[in-house]
Amino acid sequence: MKSSNFSVNNGHLIINGLDTVELARKYGSPLYIICEDTIRERFREFRSAFSGVKSDIYYAMKANGNLAILKILGSEGAGVDVFSAGELYMALLTGINREKILFNGNSKTDRELKFAISSGVTVSVDSIDELNSLSKLAAELDARASLAFRVNPDISPETHPKISTGIRTSKFGIPHDDVLKVYGMAKELDNIDIKGIHCHIGSQILKLDVFGEAMVKMMDLVELIRDEYDLELEFLDIGGGLGIPYHEDDPAPTPEDLADVILPIFKDKSAKTGISPRLILEPGRYIVADSGVLLCRVNTVKRAHKTFVGTDAGFNLLARPMIYNAYHRILVANRMDQPPAETYTIVGPICESGDILGEDRNLPRIEKGDLLAILDTGAYGFSMSSQYNQRPRCAEVLVSGGHDELIREEEAVGDLIAGQTIPDRLL
Amino acid sequence: MKSSNFSVNNGHLIINGLDTVELARKYGSPLYIICEDTIRERFREFRSAFSGVKSDIYYAMKANGNLAILKILGSEGAGVDVFSAGELYMALLTGINREKILFNGNSKTDRELKFAISSGVTVSVDSIDELNSLSKLAAELDARASLAFRVNPDISPETHPKISTGIRTSKFGIPHDDVLKVYGMAKELDNIDIKGIHCHIGSQILKLDVFGEAMVKMMDLVELIRDEYDLELEFLDIGGGLGIPYHEDDPAPTPEDLADVILPIFKDKSAKTGISPRLILEPGRYIVADSGVLLCRVNTVKRAHKTFVGTDAGFNLLARPMIYNAYHRILVANRMDQPPAETYTIVGPICESGDILGEDRNLPRIEKGDLLAILDTGAYGFSMSSQYNQRPRCAEVLVSGGHDELIREEEAVGDLIAGQTIPDRLL
Repeated sequence: MKSSNFSVNNGHLIINGLDTVELARKYGSPLYIICEDTIRERFREFRSAFSGVKSDIYYAMKANGNLAILKILGSEGAGVDVFSAGELYMALLTGINREKILFNGNSKTDRELKFAISSGVTVSVDSIDELNSLSKLAAELDARASLAFRVNPDISPETHPKISTGIRTSKFGIPHDDVLKVYGMAKELDNIDIKGIHCHIGSQILKLDVFGEAMVKMMDLVELIRDEYDLELEFLDIGGGLGIPYHEDDPAPTPEDLADVILPIFKDKSAKTGISPRLILEPGRYIVADSGVLLCRVNTVKRAHKTFVGTDAGFNLLARPMIYNAYHRILVANRMDQPPAETYTIVGPICESGDILGEDRNLPRIEKGDLLAILDTGAYGFSMSSQYNQRPRCAEVLVSGGHDELIREEEAVGDLIAGQTIPDRLL
Repeated sequence: MKSSNFSVNNGHLIINGLDTVELARKYGSPLYIICEDTIRERFREFRSAFSGVKSDIYYAMKANGNLAILKILGSEGAGVDVFSAGELYMALLTGINREKILFNGNSKTDRELKFAISSGVTVSVDSIDELNSLSKLAAELDARASLAFRVNPDISPETHPKISTGIRTSKFGIPHDDVLKVYGMAKELDNIDIKGIHCHIGSQILKLDVFGEAMVKMMDLVELIRDEYDLELEFLDIGGGLGIPYHEDDPAPTPEDLADVILPIFKDKSAKTGISPRLILEPGRYIVADSGVLLCRVNTVKRAHKTFVGTDAGFNLLARPMIYNAYHRILVANRMDQPPAETYTIVGPICESGDILGEDRNLPRIEKGDLLAILDTGAYGFSMSSQYNQRPRCAEVLVSGGHDELIREEEAVGDLIAGQTIPDRLL
């Protein structure tokens, strides 16, 4: 979150003019806070960085699929990158322009492909099997299907292996050497409209040179496809992946920096070849990560070989530290005026030793009842949440212009059992 | 699952007399199948292995919290180890004997402690902070609270670090050196009933000698507490953790083997000291893991640097391979009569490279539309599931005596948005 959205009053963390201690009292804890102004600012940074070329920003809604966030970004003119029928449904429901929706994914069901065809969105095709399915289903529906191919550009960014999606060994994309062949195959199918080309090299990337590499490879493919098939692609989707500084001392590349890396290559190649496809970017994390704060309450402080602070949120609500060993800054929201006093390891209530939210943090003296704020949790926070250990998930509140609005109700135990039926004979 | 529950007919995998291809047709895919007979068999193995001493088997419902499973195990006489208010609610709702419920966990809210006190279940207390909270809340409720202390026995089993819960560095338990002190503190509190002592050294343990180590340490503590405070503990809960053979060539220790390791120590020490607490065991995985099969459908087969089989289930439904790099056997449920023909990597539809269900498996030739069966998914399968990528979760079917019963409905996209409200001003 931009520091301008944070302040301190009476020792309390204030977000967008609102006292987090009051918010936790009003809505309970744990609680996700999402700041609308931050989302709009981040989106506008992206749009403005690429305004010098024909371009669109497709929000990667897997980062945070709240309907309110889709509405906010739709009002800013965003398109959306969707990854399932559920995401497509929610994007259409919130009125995202269907001309600006790309249905991405390596393993789509026939039902998902039919939904994409009937709603007229473009499909990012990941395999020859999928190309054949798409064509067959379009024929059955007596419709045309628009596609781009997701290309595996064989690029290794410095990020966590689990989210490095464009290296050769990843499950994603058409192998680089097969790309020309699949465009040729698609061209022979008479109910297919070839619209573009797509790649995505990974997530949380802070060293941007790999985006330049990807742009070179992708523009080379655009040229090759034109030369081989006399086919000018309407768009080039270079994917998402711009990282954010989770650590204070991480580099903090901006959309402007990304544009500085890829636009010169893009423009140069466009000028040389005479092909200038619309450029699409798919940021997710960059748009929403620092809009979000997870508030949680301290249940216990235990002095063992380390001092453990047990909170009411664990990897059920924020899985990134457990899955990727990810770092999130943590503040004591009701002791913002106190200096660091002790080293704490912040843990959740889940039944596994891996349920650690932050290790060895120097923080003001913490007691039961204190409120912690876990920063940069707007992306891949609630979206990856579970009900593990039968924990109903928490509420989400949107803050904007000094006002707070509940955008997702806290779940109740009834939500955990609503879909279940015990067979009569067992009752 | 015991091989007696599997058979093959017309090349189809048959579970408990039911054709999995038919089940997937009837209920859709993905689909969790749970075999009631297997659960009963596994529970009875445990009960019988420890029938020579005063003992109880508390099912660790975090492994799989289905109401139907609780009903089944309740009818077998099981108690339950619960880890949250939600789990306690579900255990009480399904009629589990409250004398046989232990409320476990390192970070309980006051609300959870009050629920435990008012429902009369025993609390496994993890810290001095929690002891104080429990006593204070019991006083407020004008009630007595029953407790055991969760002890960190400082033991390192060979298992995944994320589920190694009894090593010194884990977030769980009272440090071994502080145990005597906390019993002394509890004894001074006049609304506290000290009932027992508790440990849990980890999960998926296949080398059983560590259980012997734990039993020695715990019985030493039982004696020490008696000698120091003239306090005879009613129960010793040695926790769960018995592993299962996910690999064909893993060792397959049984409850009988576990009893052979710990009962001689327990009996010997009981005889020497004259203290014979009730012995409690908390198996979860062992009871339900091999009762479960996850069926999923093949969407695509892609030949890249490896041959990828894309299915309709990913780490949204089965997180263990992604989180712990866990191995699950995979069968082609509609080609059980065909020999291995190719090496496949089975992947899900989720947006991350880590979404791999099985790597380099030699399987019969697979095509789009085939049905895969992922074995041993009854524990930590659905219970750790998420709606990541906006994927509604799948149905669960109980099979028993050749009949199938729907015990959990498939979610719909409406379930993803039911709790959400878009602020009026954004509509």
